[in-house]
Parts: sequence; C-alpha cells; structure tokens
Amino acid sequence: MEEKIRLAIDMDEVLADTIDKFIEVYRRDHNTEILLEEMSGKEFHELLPDTLSHSWRDYVNAPGFFRDLKVMPGAQQVVADLQKKYDVYIVSAAMEFRNSLIDKLDWMNEHFPNIGWKNIVFCGNKIVDVQIMIDDRIRNFAGFHGRKIIFSSPHNHYITEYERANNWLEVADMLL
Amino acid sequence: MEEKIRLAIDMDEVLADTIDKFIEVYRRDHNTEILLEEMSGKEFHELLPDTLSHSWRDYVNAPGFFRDLKVMPGAQQVVADLQKKYDVYIVSAAMEFRNSLIDKLDWMNEHFPNIGWKNIVFCGNKIVDVQIMIDDRIRNFAGFHGRKIIFSSPHNHYITEYERANNWLEVADMLL
Repeated sequence: MEEKIRLAIDMDEVLADTIDKFIEVYRRDHNTEILLEEMSGKEFHELLPDTLSHSWRDYVNAPGFFRDLKVMPGAQQVVADLQKKYDVYIVSAAMEFRNSLIDKLDWMNEHFPNIGWKNIVFCGNKIVDVQIMIDDRIRNFAGFHGRKIIFSSPHNHYITEYERANNWLEVADMLL
Repeated sequence: MEEKIRLAIDMDEVLADTIDKFIEVYRRDHNTEILLEEMSGKEFHELLPDTLSHSWRDYVNAPGFFRDLKVMPGAQQVVADLQKKYDVYIVSAAMEFRNSLIDKLDWMNEHFPNIGWKNIVFCGNKIVDVQIMIDDRIRNFAGFHGRKIIFSSPHNHYITEYERANNWLEVADMLL
C-alpha cells in the first residue's frame, strides 16, 4: 500500500472555536463585550481592560475550559474527507496547560471519533514529521520545511507570507 | 547559535520503571509474584495467570498508576548532561491511556523539572522530527530514519538488530 501524505491539523482556532469561548466567558463573568471586529491583528487578551488582562490564563488553566468549545464550521466533514486521502494527525500545543490535556482528548473523541489515539499529538514545540501543516500560529511553522497553510484567525489577519485558508471549505478546495 | 541535534527519549521503561510498578501491584492485590528473570522476551501480562491476564489494562487506565513510578537509575543525571549537548524531547505514547496524561506530565515536572513543557510530546504514533531516538519499543522506530537506540527492557531481550543501551550509564557512553 502506498503511504499517504501526512497532514498535521491544529486544534485551537482551527478545529475548535476557542475565541468564541473567550468572548462568552468574559461576557458572562465580567460583563465585558469583545467584538470579533476589533480583534484583527491582536491577541484576545490584548483587548481586555487592564483590570482583566491577566485573568485569561486562569480561564485556560481551569479544568473544563477546552471541553465544550464549538467545532469550527465544516471541520468535521472536511477532516473526514481529508482522512481518505491523507494520514491526518491532530497536533495541539496543549502541554502548556496541564488541565487542558484530558479535556482536549475527550473533545476530540466526542467530535472527531474517527481520529484514533495513534493520530493525536499533544506537545509544546511542534516537532512533527509531516508534509503539510494547518495552523493559525506561525510560530508553529518555525523549522518546518513542508507545506504551511495558515488558518485564518483574527490575530493572524495581517500576516501575508503564507498560503492561507479562511475556513474549512477553503481547506477542502486546497487539499481535496 | 548552532542548532543542537534533537534527541527523543521515551518514558515508560526508559525514564520510568513501569515494570516495577506492575510487579508491585500484582504482588499487593493478587498475591502473584512475577520475577524479572522470567520476563525475557515477554510482555509482563503474558506472565500473568489466565485469571488475571486482562486486568493489567484496568491498572494502566486508572488515575494515579503512572504518577508514582520510580525513576530509572541514573536517568536524571544523564538526561541533565544530555540537555547540554542535545535538544532533548521526552516523547511518550501516552494517548492510548486517557488518565495517564496528567500523571505523566506531573511525574515529568517532579522528576525532570528542567525539561520544559515545550519539550514534552504525548502521542500515539511517534511521528517526531528528531535525529536520535531512545526507546524500548521497536514499533516506535517504524518509519524513523534517524539513529535508533533500543533501551533494554525484558520484553526486547532477544532483539538484536539495533544499537542497544542496557542502562543510562551506557547511554552516557554512547552520546556524551
């Protein structure tokens, strides 16, 4: 059997809508409304008032934060289609947040049950031996010599040096 | 700065003495004594009486199993020395056992605090982009084209095709 090309797909802001969760918890707990439109080129926490700007780490460190994130539109169908053609790995820099590990694995098993445990990688630096990488963070492309696809997220809005997918339909057009 | 060579080190039976824990829990809970001398070329669970041979999965699936493993003799000092010369990554196929993730991360932080979160990888298939790999399981060498060092564990006793380290002092001799 011919070996399939290996494709690494990021979780936060690519498969999972982490920003939506941030917006929700700050609206709920702090009556603070952050609009997607304000976010271009910025990290979410840069938009928080000074009094709140350090609390975002408390949220991501809390058990449960990553467990109920919404799936990005179209991701399930396109990933299923990609699995037919590619050896798909889900690669998340989860190691920074101890309590995210189980939440992220459970989330994967709920929403992407066809991605088996052998194809999930939780790491820090993304030192994966793959041919294609889809990620919203260009720091994860450091030292990677394969095809790099930046997945649009407000914080990367002004980055122009990479092949870009604005959504999962565009990933499908590029890779299927 | 010149880039260091990347070295991937396995956890179970390389940094952490998983077999010692197995021996202990079967002695404690089942009055069953498994001797290291009987284990050559065999997996631990193959030595269990039929009535117990399936319970080993219950143990590794339970929270806490991987939290209090003993550190393999010499591992801490040699890993510290290796970090001066190599870009050391700890790579464990932890993803099979959901509840091992946090235990393994906490264990690393306790016993190897100088290995930061960026250099820890929990995965299934070990698709890491490194130049050297130290592992007790040759299945983890599949598709890996770098230098492969098999770390002695009873189950791999009769495997002869790889460069072998019997303990951490031998790793030091080979790589330092």
